[in-house]
Amino acid sequence: MAGNTARPGTSLVLRTLDVLGSFDQQHRRLTLSAMAERADLPVPTALRIVRHLVQREALMRLEDGSYVVGRRLWELGLLAPVQSDLREVASPFMYDLHAATRATVHLAVRDDDAVLYLDRVSGGTSVSVVSRVGSRLPLHATGVGKVLLAHAPDELLPRLLPLRRVTAFTVNSPGLLARQLDRVRRDGFATTSEEMTLGACSVAVPVTSHDGQVAAALGVVVLHLRRDRPRLVAALTVAAEGIGRHLRLAHDRAV
Amino acid sequence: MAGNTARPGTSLVLRTLDVLGSFDQQHRRLTLSAMAERADLPVPTALRIVRHLVQREALMRLEDGSYVVGRRLWELGLLAPVQSDLREVASPFMYDLHAATRATVHLAVRDDDAVLYLDRVSGGTSVSVVSRVGSRLPLHATGVGKVLLAHAPDELLPRLLPLRRVTAFTVNSPGLLARQLDRVRRDGFATTSEEMTLGACSVAVPVTSHDGQVAAALGVVVLHLRRDRPRLVAALTVAAEGIGRHLRLAHDRAV
Repeated sequence: MAGNTARPGTSLVLRTLDVLGSFDQQHRRLTLSAMAERADLPVPTALRIVRHLVQREALMRLEDGSYVVGRRLWELGLLAPVQSDLREVASPFMYDLHAATRATVHLAVRDDDAVLYLDRVSGGTSVSVVSRVGSRLPLHATGVGKVLLAHAPDELLPRLLPLRRVTAFTVNSPGLLARQLDRVRRDGFATTSEEMTLGACSVAVPVTSHDGQVAAALGVVVLHLRRDRPRLVAALTVAAEGIGRHLRLAHDRAV
Repeated sequence: MAGNTARPGTSLVLRTLDVLGSFDQQHRRLTLSAMAERADLPVPTALRIVRHLVQREALMRLEDGSYVVGRRLWELGLLAPVQSDLREVASPFMYDLHAATRATVHLAVRDDDAVLYLDRVSGGTSVSVVSRVGSRLPLHATGVGKVLLAHAPDELLPRLLPLRRVTAFTVNSPGLLARQLDRVRRDGFATTSEEMTLGACSVAVPVTSHDGQVAAALGVVVLHLRRDRPRLVAALTVAAEGIGRHLRLAHDRAV
């Protein structure tokens, strides 16, 4: 890959990406000076780049002078094939699961040491959750994350230490987490109870692809778990099996 | 807005956006030379830009040497507030509508002289459709498009002429279309019958915001229309009224 070659023309591409990269889920709206600071650029340089980005609707300038990601990047981003086969196969099962449970339904994969949320189905009566499509959250604090962690290579868990406490109920003892992950592998599902968001519990199960590997996790978020757990696990398992069967079918057809 | 100032450093931002802009729904996967051609750049210049874009995961290089939009742009695009209030309010109603009809459900707005699809809910048994979230389709050939056109300023229709024929059933007579639009305003719904996609029919209704203006169109796509039309119109109307009521409530609370 080309590095920073100090040719002004070349590095401006990277600087443009730095300006865009100053936006994230916690920074969806930024002033010019905040962008410049986060992109580590002088304000005049940032302004020159931002003007062009606005001109092409990659950024949008709000009335108060701050900036948000523009319509053009939204359209472009939708063209990315980020696990699009998995998302397409899973989509109808997620709707069915939502219709059956009225819970917020998540599809997630592991992206290095975080959970990446690929898709979400949520209704008006569903419990409100932190995650959005594209969110990255800690593996050890979410139901889908525990499923993915339980089926990740052994060397991952030590890399996550110390376990960050998100709420007062987040499991931050490595020993306790290891025992929970054993249970996830044995029982076929993971649960959390207010470990990511107060007032929200979750159940999640693995989705297995053609090679027997865990390709994703499917989860639901609800207010209370205890009474509904068996029903939710049953619904999740049926949906995850359905997704896995479709993935295997699609794979067998392709080879 | 800053124009092309002929400073090489400045225009490289625009060239970078040109390279990214070479991707669209019909061109989701491009070779380097196709990108260079579509962006109107010499191949070496395009390559220099593309390398940086790949380095930052804005583009991804596939095994066959072609390129697709990368995960980083997907994440960035999801941060764009493209009608996010409308989409958030509409989402649960769209799921309910899908659960009640099993049809593909669309939420769309007019973007200049095209329909822009903001959201879609589609199940395993739904009729397959051309539109994806972020798609732009002709106003005169889609159900949601006819609703939006019927409530657009009078000067828009002449600008759409000549009406492009998408299928053999697309209405391309301006007189016939004008009469259909009169009926849409009178009856409160629009229909299409294989006018965009063979084997697919649609019904759509307007969503009205606080100022009495048509803010969006809500539509369903089904295999056949005739028998089910009254039922679909009824379900759509209830959902569109619900969305409109929420939009007005949210507006009243904000002022």
